[in-house]
Amino acid sequence: MKICWYNQQQLGAVIDGRVFNVSAALSALPPARYPAAPGDLLVAHLDAVRAAIAALLPAAPSIPVEEARFLSPVANPGKIIGVPVNYADHVAEANADQATFTDRYKGAVREQGLFLKAASALVGPSEGVALRFPQRLSHHEMELGVVIGKIAANVSVDEALSCVAGYAIALDMTVRGPEDRSLRKSVDSYAVLGPWLVTADEAGDAEKLDIELQVNGVLRQKANTAEMLIGLAEQIAWASSYYTLYPGDIIMSGTCAGVGQVRPGDVMDCAIEGIGAMRVAVRAAGE
Amino acid sequence: MKICWYNQQQLGAVIDGRVFNVSAALSALPPARYPAAPGDLLVAHLDAVRAAIAALLPAAPSIPVEEARFLSPVANPGKIIGVPVNYADHVAEANADQATFTDRYKGAVREQGLFLKAASALVGPSEGVALRFPQRLSHHEMELGVVIGKIAANVSVDEALSCVAGYAIALDMTVRGPEDRSLRKSVDSYAVLGPWLVTADEAGDAEKLDIELQVNGVLRQKANTAEMLIGLAEQIAWASSYYTLYPGDIIMSGTCAGVGQVRPGDVMDCAIEGIGAMRVAVRAAGE
Repeated sequence: MKICWYNQQQLGAVIDGRVFNVSAALSALPPARYPAAPGDLLVAHLDAVRAAIAALLPAAPSIPVEEARFLSPVANPGKIIGVPVNYADHVAEANADQATFTDRYKGAVREQGLFLKAASALVGPSEGVALRFPQRLSHHEMELGVVIGKIAANVSVDEALSCVAGYAIALDMTVRGPEDRSLRKSVDSYAVLGPWLVTADEAGDAEKLDIELQVNGVLRQKANTAEMLIGLAEQIAWASSYYTLYPGDIIMSGTCAGVGQVRPGDVMDCAIEGIGAMRVAVRAAGE
Repeated sequence: MKICWYNQQQLGAVIDGRVFNVSAALSALPPARYPAAPGDLLVAHLDAVRAAIAALLPAAPSIPVEEARFLSPVANPGKIIGVPVNYADHVAEANADQATFTDRYKGAVREQGLFLKAASALVGPSEGVALRFPQRLSHHEMELGVVIGKIAANVSVDEALSCVAGYAIALDMTVRGPEDRSLRKSVDSYAVLGPWLVTADEAGDAEKLDIELQVNGVLRQKANTAEMLIGLAEQIAWASSYYTLYPGDIIMSGTCAGVGQVRPGDVMDCAIEGIGAMRVAVRAAGE
């Protein structure tokens, strides 16, 4: 199932190019309470919501996908986790241009370690990316986004993929410079997830998906997720050895070669096999 | 006012060594909803809750502070932000022992940049610190914790302190090693905040507070917050130039010299002038 948040925080299901309004399925959730338990309430109760969506679909009103403004498919994210230097061709391009990519981060992915992006940076594709610091480089990093579906602590590689709720397209936008990654990658709107969540049962083999990004119609990044140096199951197991993963936590699983600058007015077109496509506009912050 | 969460998520107010149960003040909050707006609901509505607490206090039951098990005074944190190398004596000790502190992070605080800790790492003092990776060093870093009280984006240094809800004692626990700070500092329970939130109006001049940590009764860290290289107002303004700060976001404002290893069975006693004291027990994870 393809599940989305769209327009004025409507809940939608995407089928054959149309978005069905299934907001009434939110009644399958337990009441929100404060303090809230960690994790996104919908993702934590995805099975119940899916059943409610299925019951609603026959009578649900719909609009064409092209008319929907897609928000992040995770409404209340906890952690956003990033995986550095996880495609060999990106490692090579970074090593070849240390003036841009800094020499602060040495070693392979295991030595560099997972990093965090602020949850406050998360937007959906319709919200676009608002660039800050016009005198500095802001780069696109196109990635497969993994949404955790249940509480996971110290999980093994073998059981790791059973903790995944689904997948989405992710952009790990990045300001280049010497500062800690978790600062430069956490600018408001520098974490894009969309256009919808494809539940794990419908995403095919997530470790073998073609992935592609164009900027203004020109191909910039192209890879297959099979080329990752550390695969999804290993990422989840590794992360969960440090901290508990909760429903709605997001892993941005690493970018391939071709990362490059975006400027106000640019349009990024992202596509991942089995998931879909999303268009993300770039503007200057404050505009 | 000193406000806390304690025992089974009761809301408390601390006066003259006693904790008053003022949980009924939570009725001053708007209903929790899903999706939730960013930020901790109580901190976002602190003024209304304070008024409700004041009305409840004359008839509220109380227990001695010694009998309360204090949880984190922020129940639903968003971002936890750290400030590296922010006391000259800690800079010196780190530079003098790069085998322990790694040479990955070069330059002064502005060049190193703020970092993030996972919100899932946050605990209160009664929950203790559960060490992972027994073959690696886990260090205490004692700090003044700043709790943001309102939405703050691109605030100036002059207006920054008006965005603070209050202060608490913070422990930025850290696994030493080469990996990204945001991984090594995000182990479950490696972010301690407590024992209560002292509202900004009662904390005195937060940029001039004595701060002290003992381990097993032996003094390890001692400083005054006036010694920070970048003060609180500057930290808030800087952070808000990258990302929006929300009520309940926490800044751990940097540690002084004397950081050192803790082992299972150790007891950390932390005190900050004008805030109070908290005791935090150390155990091995899984015990």
